[in-house]
Amino acid sequence: MEIEFREGISEVIATTRNDQPNAAPMGIINRDFLYTLVYRDSHTFLNVKKNRELVANFVLDPLLYVQTAFDDLDPSFFRSDEAAPVLEAAYAWVEFKCLILEKPTQKSALVKLLPVRSVVLQRPIVSINRAFYAVLEATILATRYRTLKDPKYLERVAHYESIVKKCGGRQELEAFQLLKEHLA
Amino acid sequence: MEIEFREGISEVIATTRNDQPNAAPMGIINRDFLYTLVYRDSHTFLNVKKNRELVANFVLDPLLYVQTAFDDLDPSFFRSDEAAPVLEAAYAWVEFKCLILEKPTQKSALVKLLPVRSVVLQRPIVSINRAFYAVLEATILATRYRTLKDPKYLERVAHYESIVKKCGGRQELEAFQLLKEHLA
Repeated sequence: MEIEFREGISEVIATTRNDQPNAAPMGIINRDFLYTLVYRDSHTFLNVKKNRELVANFVLDPLLYVQTAFDDLDPSFFRSDEAAPVLEAAYAWVEFKCLILEKPTQKSALVKLLPVRSVVLQRPIVSINRAFYAVLEATILATRYRTLKDPKYLERVAHYESIVKKCGGRQELEAFQLLKEHLA
Repeated sequence: MEIEFREGISEVIATTRNDQPNAAPMGIINRDFLYTLVYRDSHTFLNVKKNRELVANFVLDPLLYVQTAFDDLDPSFFRSDEAAPVLEAAYAWVEFKCLILEKPTQKSALVKLLPVRSVVLQRPIVSINRAFYAVLEATILATRYRTLKDPKYLERVAHYESIVKKCGGRQELEAFQLLKEHLA
């Protein structure tokens, strides 16, 4: 396969579909085999259960990670020339067949990912920006805060904001602004 | 130029030379123009002052960020087929001419970076790994701890260790292990 997932967890935007396409940030876990953990009450899980299909989108714009963590994406964000649900913003993607290992007692299902096709549209040389990662970390904390309401998550978000302000460009600043609106 | 530095700060490994080549993690700042801030008592600064030359190396292995933050690299880590000091591990690099804007009252000098040549050997599709970034953040904290001895930095290193353990592969775990040896 032209795209290799690093050992450990790779953060991507996962897309699935039912009547409508759906997008959400997701960790693709590479430990001997590729899999992910999906909440059984999520759109992603319902869609995977129906179609056994998931696309891992490689995206550079941090704003999309924030948007897809909190909101449904308009169908115009998806490519119209692909059978699978693929984001217009993806510079590369991998299409997977899914094998669901579900235990009724558990909140999450393990979804085994079998690569079917990978597409590379561009090969950008991406420099490492601490602010990009800070947006991702803060997004994870913000979704936890919205569920658990523990103020310790907000303190940590503030720490990441300082990294975004110091190291970020316009994209990271814009993404963090949207994140704060979802916390207000 | 084939390699674009994102707006904000890009983390690279900067190489310079005097009699020996030197390597150190560095932030390349892109705000209207490219520059970096260098401690005036560092090897990097002495080398830049002598040769007006600096190379920004794009490197994927987190271990090299930890090694170059704390130790001198053996000359065998550098390419022998390049006039400029370039790391063997670099998949791409940019060579700069340097313009030093030094104020005797300040600890850091502003070094303006003028691109001379960029080389792209490979264009890897790099998935986003939170553990890679956690190694970088912990390295920054560890260097501060070694200077300032404030235990708050150690607490934050522990936070990043949990991300490395959860999301990392062997490379990130090995890099973090080395980091802890430097803190012991």
